[in-house]
Amino acid sequence: MVNVGVIGYGYWGPNLVRNFAETKDAKVVCVSDRKEDRLTLVQSRFPYIKVTQDPMELINDPLVDAVIISTPVSTHYDLASKAFKAGKHVLVEKPMTGSVEEGEKLLEESARAKKTLMVDHTFIYTPAVIKIKEMVGKGDLGRLLYYDSVRVNLGLFQHDVNVLWDLAVHDLSIMDFILGEQPAEVSATGVAHLNGQPQDVAYITCYLQNNLIAHFHVNWMAPVKVRRTLIGGDRQMIVYDDLEPSEKIKVYDKGVSLNEGPEGVYQMLVSYRSGDMWAPHLATTEALKTEAAHFIDCVTNGKTPQTNGEMGLRVVKILEAADTSMANRGQPVHIL
Amino acid sequence: MVNVGVIGYGYWGPNLVRNFAETKDAKVVCVSDRKEDRLTLVQSRFPYIKVTQDPMELINDPLVDAVIISTPVSTHYDLASKAFKAGKHVLVEKPMTGSVEEGEKLLEESARAKKTLMVDHTFIYTPAVIKIKEMVGKGDLGRLLYYDSVRVNLGLFQHDVNVLWDLAVHDLSIMDFILGEQPAEVSATGVAHLNGQPQDVAYITCYLQNNLIAHFHVNWMAPVKVRRTLIGGDRQMIVYDDLEPSEKIKVYDKGVSLNEGPEGVYQMLVSYRSGDMWAPHLATTEALKTEAAHFIDCVTNGKTPQTNGEMGLRVVKILEAADTSMANRGQPVHIL
Amino acid sequence: MVNVGVIGYGYWGPNLVRNFAETKDAKVVCVSDRKEDRLTLVQSRFPYIKVTQDPMELINDPLVDAVIISTPVSTHYDLASKAFKAGKHVLVEKPMTGSVEEGEKLLEESARAKKTLMVDHTFIYTPAVIKIKEMVGKGDLGRLLYYDSVRVNLGLFQHDVNVLWDLAVHDLSIMDFILGEQPAEVSATGVAHLNGQPQDVAYITCYLQNNLIAHFHVNWMAPVKVRRTLIGGDRQMIVYDDLEPSEKIKVYDKGVSLNEGPEGVYQMLVSYRSGDMWAPHLATTEALKTEAAHFIDCVTNGKTPQTNGEMGLRVVKILEAADTSMANRGQPVHIL
Amino acid sequence: MVNVGVIGYGYWGPNLVRNFAETKDAKVVCVSDRKEDRLTLVQSRFPYIKVTQDPMELINDPLVDAVIISTPVSTHYDLASKAFKAGKHVLVEKPMTGSVEEGEKLLEESARAKKTLMVDHTFIYTPAVIKIKEMVGKGDLGRLLYYDSVRVNLGLFQHDVNVLWDLAVHDLSIMDFILGEQPAEVSATGVAHLNGQPQDVAYITCYLQNNLIAHFHVNWMAPVKVRRTLIGGDRQMIVYDDLEPSEKIKVYDKGVSLNEGPEGVYQMLVSYRSGDMWAPHLATTEALKTEAAHFIDCVTNGKTPQTNGEMGLRVVKILEAADTSMANRGQPVHIL
Repeated sequence: MVNVGVIGYGYWGPNLVRNFAETKDAKVVCVSDRKEDRLTLVQSRFPYIKVTQDPMELINDPLVDAVIISTPVSTHYDLASKAFKAGKHVLVEKPMTGSVEEGEKLLEESARAKKTLMVDHTFIYTPAVIKIKEMVGKGDLGRLLYYDSVRVNLGLFQHDVNVLWDLAVHDLSIMDFILGEQPAEVSATGVAHLNGQPQDVAYITCYLQNNLIAHFHVNWMAPVKVRRTLIGGDRQMIVYDDLEPSEKIKVYDKGVSLNEGPEGVYQMLVSYRSGDMWAPHLATTEALKTEAAHFIDCVTNGKTPQTNGEMGLRVVKILEAADTSMANRGQPVHIL
Repeated sequence: MVNVGVIGYGYWGPNLVRNFAETKDAKVVCVSDRKEDRLTLVQSRFPYIKVTQDPMELINDPLVDAVIISTPVSTHYDLASKAFKAGKHVLVEKPMTGSVEEGEKLLEESARAKKTLMVDHTFIYTPAVIKIKEMVGKGDLGRLLYYDSVRVNLGLFQHDVNVLWDLAVHDLSIMDFILGEQPAEVSATGVAHLNGQPQDVAYITCYLQNNLIAHFHVNWMAPVKVRRTLIGGDRQMIVYDDLEPSEKIKVYDKGVSLNEGPEGVYQMLVSYRSGDMWAPHLATTEALKTEAAHFIDCVTNGKTPQTNGEMGLRVVKILEAADTSMANRGQPVHIL
Repeated sequence: MVNVGVIGYGYWGPNLVRNFAETKDAKVVCVSDRKEDRLTLVQSRFPYIKVTQDPMELINDPLVDAVIISTPVSTHYDLASKAFKAGKHVLVEKPMTGSVEEGEKLLEESARAKKTLMVDHTFIYTPAVIKIKEMVGKGDLGRLLYYDSVRVNLGLFQHDVNVLWDLAVHDLSIMDFILGEQPAEVSATGVAHLNGQPQDVAYITCYLQNNLIAHFHVNWMAPVKVRRTLIGGDRQMIVYDDLEPSEKIKVYDKGVSLNEGPEGVYQMLVSYRSGDMWAPHLATTEALKTEAAHFIDCVTNGKTPQTNGEMGLRVVKILEAADTSMANRGQPVHIL
Repeated sequence: MVNVGVIGYGYWGPNLVRNFAETKDAKVVCVSDRKEDRLTLVQSRFPYIKVTQDPMELINDPLVDAVIISTPVSTHYDLASKAFKAGKHVLVEKPMTGSVEEGEKLLEESARAKKTLMVDHTFIYTPAVIKIKEMVGKGDLGRLLYYDSVRVNLGLFQHDVNVLWDLAVHDLSIMDFILGEQPAEVSATGVAHLNGQPQDVAYITCYLQNNLIAHFHVNWMAPVKVRRTLIGGDRQMIVYDDLEPSEKIKVYDKGVSLNEGPEGVYQMLVSYRSGDMWAPHLATTEALKTEAAHFIDCVTNGKTPQTNGEMGLRVVKILEAADTSMANRGQPVHIL
């Protein structure tokens, strides 16, 4: 049995508490939030859970084995670091930290404490993303050509981070998982429209190996909701639309091939193939449920999480580089 | 009556001939194409039109008042230049020329010859784009925030130009028309996947005044066809989907407003509004028909075309700057 | 304060309990279900609610003011009748009863007991249906021509009633509310594909006044989910798609008009108009929440429910007539 | 070489002339139309085709081998009959004749003249319908449960026939082709909204063997265009949407099965399966082109057309029965 404590009962915290409360071999023993009315809500729903306004009380509670951090990004490093010092395992909201420097320190501290560090990149646990990873991994798509992702809507404004750290973080983690490769360089553009507010519209281009290009479009101020990713290979192409109720993934048996023409390289023949479309049936499992069980499994059996600290750090590296590029109107930035 | 000659009877030429043949006060008197079988096709359809393999014969024909150039981009400047020298009016396919230098020379030559120079930016003559221009012009959208355009599909490969000069040229002309403003700086990214072929996937960001940002996504290798533009203002937002058979424009009464909170600038309140959606009825006039009549009107009455040489040059300037930026992985490039 | 008891905690019961638990001036004091595990579930969620396997214990509980019946259709009349005898108000699931005869008796018993009888036709309380009723009521659509409704999907099989009593019941109540008129005659067709099971695919045509025709298509075995109603008038037409996340109602400024031609009645000119489309913004209130508050208001203040027993009976009359017609392959049946 | 003459150059005639003009081994030698301006149009497009206002001149022209009849339904029998008497082959627009009586006589006359009789049921020659026929024929769908077709839009008003004879005729021919079975009984409903005009909205139910039911919804006055057919089997189900540009057919690996429960027939278990969806690639051949070649092949080589007179007559039988049923508000009518 793993006893977990959850810090932050705002927008996402209730989902974490509910899912861990229903996870086998896990028990939510404590919830912490600065706001008293949030704690009252916890108690009305889960009378048996201890509540506190002081996160340190939760972190230092000897009953707590693992700390789940669901607070603003700027506090992630500090709270996670303290949790490791107190000998706890940690599951932290995405993005893992607010900077690469903090991220690198956190990885060291996790290693020193010999405790699990997992990042809550929830999409990695959805049946759709797992299916795409499997298809790309088997080479079904052939040589990958491009990855194009759009995540826009008239959404909530995040005051603490810009639209990249709020929305693109999802897509960067999905790309990291599917491609298994860190981009070498990024170029990003974007603007802030409201005085004193962070950027609300942004675009990132990532350069990967073998001429593979990945592009991300995020926008807090669109009139329509779009969650769509195209992945193009020279054998097959995928359209992943997260808003489709039942056909989230469509696989097109379309591609392009380059044949040398009769007169050699000066006569290349580009030919397009057009074929069937196929939408695989997907399970309807809730991703957070899968993820909670995976965290408990990692903590209990010492396994490495799918979304471990290394992955969390890779995503933060792209975000930080994108911020730098965006401040310089697209100037490319290398990622180390 | 304006007698026109059409050079190039390949993909687009037949549409030009058919439309000018049905335009009041215009007469197609000559068609030129390098390929004999294309000329045979012209004669079977229009027995009364003179045909020739030599474009100079057409240009120098005293019967011809106006020359329409529908050939590869690399030949535009040379043919148009010769037409002006021969004292003819010119309608040239988009993009107007293959470089800014050629474009500037062509404008001078047109001025010197005192003949009309018009560029075939057909979308400017569609009922949808005219409607959007009208709405933006009246200020219906409020302060403009962003312009986002996607034009992708599994399409024909252009061997002579890259995907920017083939596809983005449409969207850049639409933006020029709607916003009436030249961007100050661009950042572009993109790659070529086939050896010896031009870029097939590309992205452009344009920086305009007042934090307005415009972004363009073009792709020759997508499995699905998308032709969608979002235009966001702080009062209303437009979704323009050119593939919708009957509701190409949707106007959302949605927006965002920034109010100063009770405690001054440190407490900005961002609020979203959500309202009705409205799809104006649009005429179903064929754009090329409207454009042909407009060209004849300009030639006859000395009017300035909606899509004149200045506009053609502004579009070429963005394309050339985007090429430079793309070669440098997004490095921003100023437009003069 | 109205104390309510809920009989039946199966598919819909939990929604009723949750909504009434959150309704002002209402309190859920008792829940009854035949199955012990359902009662255990009630207690884990609402420790303060009394539970019992015996519905008569609930009905006769002096603490209970109003009985909510969420059980199979065949038991509706019996339970509601006993509730009236015990001096309780009643909210009963749709369809109100399993036959016209039961329905008529129930109305009498409700009148005799001077207690509220309301039927849970939930759709009547949705913002979309309320908006359509308002538009039709104001005459926005002009003269009504047709009403066409489709409700199909690969759904749960109801063993106790056929697809008309399970699905068409929704649409018949919506039509009753919007048109405010009882059809004079119906013709219905349909078949049962599984031995010993009720009809799973069915169609109803209702004849109303002034050549208005209403048609309903329901199907338990379709591969896709459709919930779409077309309402055609000679001035405007509505498409109501309940699966659309944000634009459930689209109003088309299209219509048809008949003008007498120059040569009199022998030369009628039918002309079509084509105009704008408009999607009104709708509130996102949960219908059951609105309905629960309305029931409490009716019980407390003696008001007549929007979905009262008369309406419930009108719907049952159409269903019973449709069953008769369906058994005779479409033979029309008068409704009295 | 087959010399064809086309009677009627109105809405559909120009498509017939254009396609036969491009068909191998066929030559359009004569076109007839009552209206002089239509004939002028023919001559401007095809200077070599002979034109006449008198259809008998065309029919009796010894140069003409086959007569194509594209005139109002009421004239079909008379013109076709005369063509057979003159020893010509006949391709007649759908519906073949205006009554069963005329249809039966025409079949006899065709047999007596030993000339080909083919009906222009164009949809039978589309790649989508051919694909569905193939799948159903191979038993891919398992046991067929239902066939449901919708064909509605704000369309042209036909003054000479009602909406069944104008629109349902398409779907009835498709059903005939796919199922290869004549319904035993029909029930139809519908109304006319404009004085002195035929019915503009109508519904037909057809009863086939083994509890298979087919339903058709046609409407001239809908605000949106719908062309959708669902075909449900107990193994797979098809959605055929003719308006989809590239995925007209979607095959759902969904179905329903009935298993006997542990306690025998009293405990039937209905279970639903949910699986992949698949959209086969379809050729983009123009149906009329395929059909024209097929007609020439039948005439030349004495083959029986896919859409021969027997099929044309089966469709007319359903239409006539549906008219009778519709006049009696759904009363079922047997088909002999």
